[in-house]
Amino acid sequence: MKAIAVQPGAGGPDVVSRPVPEPAPGEALVRIHRVGVDGTDYEVIEGTHGGVPDGDDRLVLGHEAVGVVEDPNGTGLEAGQYVVPTVRRPPPGVETNDYFERGDPDMAPEGEYVERGIVGAHGFMAEYVTSPAAYLVPIPDELAPWGFLVEPISITEKAIEHARASRSAFDWRPESALVLGTGALGLLTAAMFTETLGYERVYCLGRKDRPHPTIDIVERLGATYVDSRETPVDEVAAAYEPMDVVYEATGHATHAFESIDALAPNGVAALLGVPTDWTFEIDGGRLHRDLVLSNKALVGSVNSNRRHFEAAIDTLAALPDWLLESIVTGIYGLDEIERAFPSATAPAATTDGGSGVGPDDDTTIKTAVEFMPI
Amino acid sequence: MKAIAVQPGAGGPDVVSRPVPEPAPGEALVRIHRVGVDGTDYEVIEGTHGGVPDGDDRLVLGHEAVGVVEDPNGTGLEAGQYVVPTVRRPPPGVETNDYFERGDPDMAPEGEYVERGIVGAHGFMAEYVTSPAAYLVPIPDELAPWGFLVEPISITEKAIEHARASRSAFDWRPESALVLGTGALGLLTAAMFTETLGYERVYCLGRKDRPHPTIDIVERLGATYVDSRETPVDEVAAAYEPMDVVYEATGHATHAFESIDALAPNGVAALLGVPTDWTFEIDGGRLHRDLVLSNKALVGSVNSNRRHFEAAIDTLAALPDWLLESIVTGIYGLDEIERAFPSATAPAATTDGGSGVGPDDDTTIKTAVEFMPI
Repeated sequence: MKAIAVQPGAGGPDVVSRPVPEPAPGEALVRIHRVGVDGTDYEVIEGTHGGVPDGDDRLVLGHEAVGVVEDPNGTGLEAGQYVVPTVRRPPPGVETNDYFERGDPDMAPEGEYVERGIVGAHGFMAEYVTSPAAYLVPIPDELAPWGFLVEPISITEKAIEHARASRSAFDWRPESALVLGTGALGLLTAAMFTETLGYERVYCLGRKDRPHPTIDIVERLGATYVDSRETPVDEVAAAYEPMDVVYEATGHATHAFESIDALAPNGVAALLGVPTDWTFEIDGGRLHRDLVLSNKALVGSVNSNRRHFEAAIDTLAALPDWLLESIVTGIYGLDEIERAFPSATAPAATTDGGSGVGPDDDTTIKTAVEFMPI
Repeated sequence: MKAIAVQPGAGGPDVVSRPVPEPAPGEALVRIHRVGVDGTDYEVIEGTHGGVPDGDDRLVLGHEAVGVVEDPNGTGLEAGQYVVPTVRRPPPGVETNDYFERGDPDMAPEGEYVERGIVGAHGFMAEYVTSPAAYLVPIPDELAPWGFLVEPISITEKAIEHARASRSAFDWRPESALVLGTGALGLLTAAMFTETLGYERVYCLGRKDRPHPTIDIVERLGATYVDSRETPVDEVAAAYEPMDVVYEATGHATHAFESIDALAPNGVAALLGVPTDWTFEIDGGRLHRDLVLSNKALVGSVNSNRRHFEAAIDTLAALPDWLLESIVTGIYGLDEIERAFPSATAPAATTDGGSGVGPDDDTTIKTAVEFMPI
C-alpha cells in the first residue's frame, strides 16, 4: 500500500510503499478516507517536534484522519462504518497505564504515551491502518467527508473543557472570547465560540492584510478581526474589551503572558501553542498581582481524549457547511502531495502560524490528503 | 468605644475612640473578642494596599475577627452566639450586585466591593461592630478563641477549591504539595495539606535558619522544610520531586513563574501573593511550552466567600491544638498593641513575608488583638 512518510529534518514528505498492516486481536483494519495536514505535521517534518518510532528512520505522518472499517476483526465495530482514530497510544511494549485506564491519555506525561503520526508511532497517512477498536470513534456517514476536522476540533473541546473547569468554583457567565491565531484551528475555534458555545462577542487576532479569505470567514461568523500589527495582545482589552476567555493558538511565547492583560477579571486563558525557547522581559510583578487580585487563570492544554472526539463530532455536525467549505481550501490525492503540504518547502512560518494553525502561504487555510474517495 | 485605626503611610496604628455603632435593620451588633494581624494589615499601614473610606482620613483596621452577638436586632441570630464576619461588602450606596447576589463576592472586580479593614470600609478592630447578618458566620463556642484564624484559613479554602476545580476535567490524584512561605498562612496551609486534604508529601519553602520554631512546626506536621537559599523554587522539582500543587504565599513575583518549573505534569499553582511592579527576564518560550505540553495551570486567588468561611470552620475544628498554640505566638490587649504589630515599626519585610504571611521578626508567627476576654 501507499503511505506518506518523512525523515524528520531531512526534507519534505514522500509517498512510500508499505505492507498492508494485519490487525491484531482487538484491532480493526481501517481503510483511510482523508487525513488533514496541520502545523504539527510541519514541526515533525522540520524535526522540531515529535520523532520516529524506535528502530525506524522514517515516520508515517498523519494524526487527523477519517476512514472506514474494512475488517472489524471481531471487535464489535461494523464493516463499512466510518471512524475517526484518536492519536495517543500506550508506549511500545506497554498494554496500558493509569492515564489510559482512566480514559485520560491526553493527561499522560512524556514517556507514558506515543502519538500516531507525531512521536514514536506511525500515523494515519496510509491506505490502511490498524487500531484497537477502543481508539476508533464512530462518525455518521454524512459527516465523514469532514471527519479529518474532528481531531483539531477535539483539541479545542479539551482546552475549553479545562478552561471552563478552572472557572467552575463560582457562577461564571462568560460573554467575550479572543482567539489568537487565524489558522484553521483558530477559525474553527472562533466558530465554536459563536456557533456552539454561545459567546456573544468573539474576536480573532491575526496579521493578515485585507482583503483576505480568513478575515472574510471571521466576519461572516459575526466575529471581529483584530490586526495584531495595530493592536498587540496586551492592548486588546483597552482597544476592544477585556476578554472572559483568551484562546492562544499561535505558539508565540509572549502571547501567553500578554494574555493576562487581555483578560477580564475572573477570565481564563487557554494556552495551546508550542513555542521554542525564548527569553524576554515581563513585568512579572504586575502580571502576578493581576492574576491574584483579578482571580485570573492560565491553563495549558495538549492533545485530547475520546470524550473530546465524541464532543467534536457533535460540534462538527453543528457547524455550518459554508464554514467548512471555506476553511478546507484543498483536498489532494497522492499524486499531488506537494500541494497538500505547501509549507513543507516554503520559507519559515510566520509568527501567527504555530501549533495546529496550519500552513502559511497566503490563500491556503486547511488541506487534506485523500487516500480513497467516498 | 475603643478601636485601632491607622492613617495609611503615616506611621503605626493607634487606639482611637469611636461611638458604638447602631445596627441598621438586617444588621446585628457584635462585640468583638479577638482580631488577627496579618501581612495585609502591614500593607494597609504602609499605604501600599487598600485605602480609607471616602471622606475619612483614618481606617479602622482588622479583617480577621471573631466576636459574640450582643444584639441580634431581629436578624435570626441569637444573643451570645459566636460569629466570624466575612470581609467584602457592596460599595457604599449599593445594596447588592451580581457577585454578591450569586454568593461570589470574592469574584467581584475592583470597584464592585469594599473590604472591611482593608479598602473603603472600617474593619473589625473595635469593641463593637455592626454587620448584616448574612455576613456573620456562626462558629461553635469551643472554637471561638481561635476564630480569628477562620478568615486566613478561608483564603486557602478558596485557593484550593479553585486549584482543584482547574483539575476537575480529568481524574486527578494529587499527592505532593509545595507551600511557598513559612508565615502563619503558609503554616496553616501546610497543615491543611497534611491534616485535612490528605496529601502524602508536603514541602514548605522559607528562608529561616535552624533551629527555628517555624521549621519545628513544619517538621512536626510531617512536612519537609526547603530552604530557598539552598534550593530556589525552580530547582525544587529536581532536588525533591515535581509537585502536584504549588501554593504561593510569598508575594515574590518570580515565584509565580518559577512555580511552573516546580510543578509535576498536570499540576496547578495557586497564586495568592500581591507583589509590586517588578520587571525581570524569563524563558517565556520554555515556560509557555511546558504549561502546554504538561497540561499545567496557574490560578490566581484573592479573598473568600461565606462557603469558604464555613469550610474553614470545619478545617479549624480538625487542626490539632498543638499547631494552633504554636502558630499563635501572642495575643495582646489594647494596652500593648505595639506587641501585636511588631513589624509596623520594624525594618522592611523580608521577601518571604508578603500577603497574609504576617509579621517578620524572628519569633513572632501570628498575633491577635484581644478586645474582650471570653
